[in-house]
Parts: sequence; structure tokens; C-alpha cells
Amino acid sequence: MKTVLIGAGNVATQLGKALHEANYRIIQVYSRTEASASMLAARLGTTFTADPAAIADNADLYLFCVKDDAIVPILSAMPVGAGLYIHTAGSVPMGVFSERVERYGVLYPLQTFSKARDLSFREIPLLLEAAREEDAWILAALAGKLSDTVHFITSEKRKYLHLAAVFACNFTNHIYALAAEIVESEGMDWALLQPLISETAAKAMVLPPSDAQTGPAVRGDYEVMQKHLEWLKDDRTKDIYRMLSESIHANSLKERKG
Amino acid sequence: MKTVLIGAGNVATQLGKALHEANYRIIQVYSRTEASASMLAARLGTTFTADPAAIADNADLYLFCVKDDAIVPILSAMPVGAGLYIHTAGSVPMGVFSERVERYGVLYPLQTFSKARDLSFREIPLLLEAAREEDAWILAALAGKLSDTVHFITSEKRKYLHLAAVFACNFTNHIYALAAEIVESEGMDWALLQPLISETAAKAMVLPPSDAQTGPAVRGDYEVMQKHLEWLKDDRTKDIYRMLSESIHANSLKERKG
Repeated sequence: MKTVLIGAGNVATQLGKALHEANYRIIQVYSRTEASASMLAARLGTTFTADPAAIADNADLYLFCVKDDAIVPILSAMPVGAGLYIHTAGSVPMGVFSERVERYGVLYPLQTFSKARDLSFREIPLLLEAAREEDAWILAALAGKLSDTVHFITSEKRKYLHLAAVFACNFTNHIYALAAEIVESEGMDWALLQPLISETAAKAMVLPPSDAQTGPAVRGDYEVMQKHLEWLKDDRTKDIYRMLSESIHANSLKERKG
Repeated sequence: MKTVLIGAGNVATQLGKALHEANYRIIQVYSRTEASASMLAARLGTTFTADPAAIADNADLYLFCVKDDAIVPILSAMPVGAGLYIHTAGSVPMGVFSERVERYGVLYPLQTFSKARDLSFREIPLLLEAAREEDAWILAALAGKLSDTVHFITSEKRKYLHLAAVFACNFTNHIYALAAEIVESEGMDWALLQPLISETAAKAMVLPPSDAQTGPAVRGDYEVMQKHLEWLKDDRTKDIYRMLSESIHANSLKERKG
């Protein structure tokens, strides 16, 4: 399958490498930033362009790995052919393609990507959607070569997965940052918290998080919570402490009733 | 060193096993719940009591692994001897022992414990404090047999570590629970989020979390955030989304200025 990679960011880099290793023939990389396009093309041993009008129109597969609001402008500026057009975005409905092409779908990798960290795609859930049944088979075959976890879900469901991912990844990471700030403002090394962070994530692999909840809020230990609020210096962080503690408490009451 | 273990919960169980493996002689387990005391004593091949007045007064070391507010009542009800009295609590000052005994200190393991999950103590930071210098050496020798990360810190610093641990463990776990709720309320398996949770934690091992921040809030993508707020059903979860997004945004401005 002749494949064109549209984008040269974190997702494009990791997906491009995984496809390359699975012997897909990547015939071109497009990025509006020529340096990024050329760098990724060099890694994948292929050609590149920074001009959407120069995107090849004879590929079998177009993989859009760009920001949500870049999909439509690129699609409008590129020549379209008979290939299959796929995007990788959590929050963008599949229908974004429908005005311009007939064969389209989605391959959403539920993971956080960095250019510098190589990930194995085998453990990344790939959530698929296709407008036509015959393209669903093509997409499933592609996804199955990359990952052990492949599901078809609708655009409507996918948007909730993306929302949940903001909690599980972006918000979690910010909570880490707040914890690091507390430790560092007292002159200690935030690496002291790393084993705790690892173990908390490891527990979530074996136990539903609502069952694994520990700490003063779920115990209803108001004395400790009151002290913690006094020790926090930043008002916004105090609000976050208060609100998350209330939410933990409310959830534990629901659990008991349920 | 003849050691008495006071408590039979998660910390006592894991610490007791680690000491046992390091060839410490645990001569007794105390718990107010006889069944717990007897079960842990059996695992450690030792005796037990549920009566504080029956705690041995001739041990070299007493390790309190009980709830914060149980330390003083037990200490008041037990016969005291010439041993070293140590508690394992993050938020309790070392001075809690000072009215009743002369040799005392703290060994605070910065980790979350479950009875059922066996942990290697080698990677758990142990934070120590001792009232007398000669006891500091005893405590350091003990801690060094258990863990590769041993530091002395004051009660004042320790309380901030414990506060940071509430963020890094309890709040993080609750964020996982909220993410799981979003996914499950749409009829999907929350295990889809597990690879993302693992990778987010793994990134924090190699990159300061404030540098690793991704997502709509740090990008300032108000369109996506507005949609997410509409899709969330629960008002408290909406508030948490809004507040954490604001905090992420505020931190990213600080970073840029800093």
C-alpha cells in the first residue's frame, strides 16, 4: 500500500516509524514546515513536500497526523485521488472528509506521543472508524499489523475517549507537576515522588481506581485535610485540593450506596 | 535487634516482611484487632497480642505502623522500656513520643501500600529522623538494609512530602477514577486507558512534569475545552476540568516567564 504521511509531529513520527517497520511503503511526507518534513522523510527513506498542492494524488492511503483544525485546510489545498483518507484525531468526527473524498475513516491511537520517546505500537489501543465496509477491512488489517488492541468505535464514542484521555494523561501530569512544586519549594528533590507515581499507575493496571482510593479524603480525615490546606501556599492549588477531596468523598459515598 | 511491630495493616505487613527478609528478629506483633495481629504474626513466625499492656518491654526497636491518631493512645497504654521508638507517619511530628520515652525517631516510607501487593523496599525512599545522634546511626543502618534511597529530613519537611504524596498518589488515582467513569458511562472498557496511564507515569520518570505537559489547556485550545465541558455530565467533574485547565494554563505562563 502506497502511503502518504500528512504531518511530521509526534504522532506522524511514531506512526510513520511503526508503518515503516511493518513494511508499508511510505511514498511521501507532507508538512507545512519543510525542515520537519525533510527530517522525517530522511528517517523513513522517502520524499517530502511542504506544498499541499504537491502531495501525490496516486497513493492508496493518506494518513493525517496534524492538529485538529489543520485537516480541512490541507484537504482543500491538496489534489485528491481514489485513495483512502484517514485521520488520527480524537475529537474530530469522521465526516470532516465527506465533502471532498468518498473513501475515508479514522485511526485514533489512544496514547501520548513524544518525538524523542520510541513507543511500541503493539500495546497502544487503536480505535477505528470507516465510512465504507470494504475500507473498514483495509483499516482493520493495517491496525492489526501495528497493535494487539484494535476496536471499531463511532465518532460519538471516540470523543468521550479523548475527553477521558485529557483526565488520564494531561490532568494526571499536571497533578504530578503540582506535587513536584510542593516538594521543590521545600528544597527537596522531586524524584523522591517517582516510586510513588510508578506504583500508583501500576495499581491502576490491576485494580479499578475507585477501589484503590486511599488518603485522607476517602478516610474522611478532616484534621489532616485542614492542616494540608494551611500548608499549601498557592490559592489555586488550595482550591484544587479542596475540590478533588470533595469529589473523592462524594465518589466514596456513591460506591457505598451502589 | 529484637523488634516489636505495632500495627498489622498495609504498612506493618510490608515493612514486617521486609525486616523479616533482612533477618531482623520480630519478637511480637501488636494490633487491637486480634485476627489481624495473629495473621501477620503467623506470616512472620512470631507471637502476637491485642492488648497494649502485654506488649514486650524488652525489645530494642518498636515500629509503630498505625493510624496517626492511634500512636499516642497505644504509647500511653503500653509498658515502655529502654528501646528505640519509631513511627512511620508522614504528618506526625517526631515529638509525639517525647513525653513518654527518650529514644525515638521516624522512618517514613514514601509509598502507597496494599496488603495484597508485595513491593520491593529497595526502591522506596525512606525518610528518617531521630532525636539522638546515636539512634540516627541505628536507624540509618536499618533503613540502608531495606532501601537504596535513604535521607534524613526534619518533621517540618516531612509534612510537605506527605502533602505532595496526597497529590501524586491519592489525587492522581481519583483522576484515573474520573477518567474511568467517563469511558464506562459510554459503555466502553476503561482498560483502554491503561497504556496511556502507564506511559504518562513513565514519562514522569525521565522528564520534569511541567516540561511534559500536553493537551488542550497548555495549547490554549479553547474550542476543544468548550466542547469537553459540554460533554461532561457531572457538575463537580466540570468544575474540576475547568480548575485544572486554568491551573495548567497559569503554570505554562509562569514557565515561559521563568
